[in-house]
Amino acid sequence: MKQRSFAARLDHVSGAAVKDIISMMVDPSITSFGGGSPANESFPIAEIKEIVNQVLTDSPYELLQYGKTEGYLPLREAYLEHIVLPKGVRADVQNVITVSGGTQGFDLATQAFVDPGDVVLLESPTYLTVFNVLRKLGAEIVAVKTDENGIRIDDLEEKIQRYHPKMLYAIPTFQNPTGRTLPVERRKRIAELAGEYNLIVAEDDPYCELRYRGEALPPIKSFDTSGNVIMLSSFSKTISPGIRVGALVADHDIIEKMTDIKQCSDTHSTNLTQAICAEYLKRGLLPGHIESIRPMYLARMNAMLDGIRQYFPKNIRYTDPDGGLFTWVELPGKELPGDVDTRVIVKESVAKIKVGFVPGSPFFLDPAEGKNCLRLNFSSNTPEKISAGIKSLGDLLCEIVR
Amino acid sequence: MKQRSFAARLDHVSGAAVKDIISMMVDPSITSFGGGSPANESFPIAEIKEIVNQVLTDSPYELLQYGKTEGYLPLREAYLEHIVLPKGVRADVQNVITVSGGTQGFDLATQAFVDPGDVVLLESPTYLTVFNVLRKLGAEIVAVKTDENGIRIDDLEEKIQRYHPKMLYAIPTFQNPTGRTLPVERRKRIAELAGEYNLIVAEDDPYCELRYRGEALPPIKSFDTSGNVIMLSSFSKTISPGIRVGALVADHDIIEKMTDIKQCSDTHSTNLTQAICAEYLKRGLLPGHIESIRPMYLARMNAMLDGIRQYFPKNIRYTDPDGGLFTWVELPGKELPGDVDTRVIVKESVAKIKVGFVPGSPFFLDPAEGKNCLRLNFSSNTPEKISAGIKSLGDLLCEIVR
Repeated sequence: MKQRSFAARLDHVSGAAVKDIISMMVDPSITSFGGGSPANESFPIAEIKEIVNQVLTDSPYELLQYGKTEGYLPLREAYLEHIVLPKGVRADVQNVITVSGGTQGFDLATQAFVDPGDVVLLESPTYLTVFNVLRKLGAEIVAVKTDENGIRIDDLEEKIQRYHPKMLYAIPTFQNPTGRTLPVERRKRIAELAGEYNLIVAEDDPYCELRYRGEALPPIKSFDTSGNVIMLSSFSKTISPGIRVGALVADHDIIEKMTDIKQCSDTHSTNLTQAICAEYLKRGLLPGHIESIRPMYLARMNAMLDGIRQYFPKNIRYTDPDGGLFTWVELPGKELPGDVDTRVIVKESVAKIKVGFVPGSPFFLDPAEGKNCLRLNFSSNTPEKISAGIKSLGDLLCEIVR
Repeated sequence: MKQRSFAARLDHVSGAAVKDIISMMVDPSITSFGGGSPANESFPIAEIKEIVNQVLTDSPYELLQYGKTEGYLPLREAYLEHIVLPKGVRADVQNVITVSGGTQGFDLATQAFVDPGDVVLLESPTYLTVFNVLRKLGAEIVAVKTDENGIRIDDLEEKIQRYHPKMLYAIPTFQNPTGRTLPVERRKRIAELAGEYNLIVAEDDPYCELRYRGEALPPIKSFDTSGNVIMLSSFSKTISPGIRVGALVADHDIIEKMTDIKQCSDTHSTNLTQAICAEYLKRGLLPGHIESIRPMYLARMNAMLDGIRQYFPKNIRYTDPDGGLFTWVELPGKELPGDVDTRVIVKESVAKIKVGFVPGSPFFLDPAEGKNCLRLNFSSNTPEKISAGIKSLGDLLCEIVR
């Protein structure tokens, strides 16, 4: 068969890491801590059924006909009133565009600003899909160091000065993959740097509503005085990921530019699922829903953390998160290359003890940096399954990491 | 305010033409022949309401949880069985990916193959959004001449040899904007050229089911022996555009590449609306639905063509289409630059007689080529409104074009 001449831009774009995660999740004999999905038990099925029937009765032509590229107006308004303004972000409806999930929000933001060769800064480690988003646009990726509180401001400022980046991508709350949360002072400082260096900050905050303890922190966007911060939100973790609805808030000229790009990407997002979210927010159902799923997620998180403390090797480091879907484990041996590689361990783990997780490497620009790390998701299994799976995994790790 | 440093790639990407069309359509005092929307009266509202309730009852977790990037399997299967195979295209489910409408299908196909500077051939005139899709990727666009039967094979072959293009984009059936249909022999020849010159052909066929007279023609894809033809389908014109569901069929390696790109574009398309389409097809409702809306569209098309014959200047040319949503009018004066410009006429038309249409220029690579042309949509108004609007427009044109 002839060689197909795909675009050279895509040479380093690979869906393999995500496919590996998915293949683990579809095998029912495996206890998978690999995914990043909310729990099936968290979906408000009855309300969605009732709402979809109502919106199709009230507005069938509006929902079934072409919609506006910038989004379904009732959702833009409801997102502003129920999500944006309560976080202390000053905005009006002209500052909002709805998108088909958070990843599309970042993809459109990147398309709006990044030419081939432009530098984009990332937290290291970060959400693995953003590497592909940036590579398909030909961006140069530079990783910024993090500590147990997230992105390090000293390293960020040094890299801004050295690389003159176009954009920083950051997940400040219950970060993926680490579960860490950026303190308020660092959030403020990032907003200042955005102004000082004319740096676009894409603040991705899909997990922030899933807080199980402690006080909510204001987003970076709430400290934005330069208009360079874009706050990306998603309903995937709070209502449903299958409906593909997110929204974002930014200066109006950025919204206009992203609208032009979205117009020639997918015309607009699905009206019906936008209307479901709009009605869900307008009825004020979201706070109560989150309240109702919080104990379930807290119990799962505690089952995982208790198991890690009890069964994992003692010389590890791990995140004790205040919310979100993940914890992150660093095994000893980072300084001994070849000693530990979680990409090898995961194969043994799946084969021997039927427990899956995501190895750390795909979350790093330099895969070698993540060899001793693993991401563990606690939202998708019952506390009982988590306890059993973490015990098995801990026993295996104790054999490997002495 | 500081200058925002948007990506240079976007310098020639503008949503202005589409925004002009939309602004005409939302003013209820204007009879708009400008849109490209199916009729509100064509939507199968009752069936959609019933189906959405059923699928949410039968498969709530599957639909509300994350789905697969390549699409909801029952829709991929139903598209294959009910749309692809009956057209004489040999394919199996591995050759199918579902997308968020036809424009996303073309955007993903272009991203898969086109690097900055690569040449893409288009019919001249063509669907105006594809210029933006291609420009945002930095493609070089070359227009291929057309006649009253669509793309001219002699000019196509000459331009293939001269420019070594990566891709050809074509709408063979009831083309947008011209309403013209490409004869079978030309379809065969395009499939051959795709093999001879290793040219990717993106065959966009969203209107093909909306045939009001004559026999259906096989798609270019049915003659594909090289695996270089991608057939793009959409449910926007047959079920609903607001649900944003399309699908496409291509060689498996192309599907895999597009899946990787879609994964870092929007993760996957909305499960719920994919399930609506799947169930609609599986129940066998589509043929009867199309049968039921055909007389309505035929009556509207005839009202428009009758009006054109009766009231438009006699020295014009226009398409007498066999289906679709559009006819295309060429006024005399193309050889007299400055004499006629439909971009000027449309302003007068909207202001004086409250009738809107799309001027020809945005459908051409060289806007000057379309100065004497206008696209008229006949799907969105009743025959009575069409007759009255076309009479007013004809009277105005007779004043201008003597």
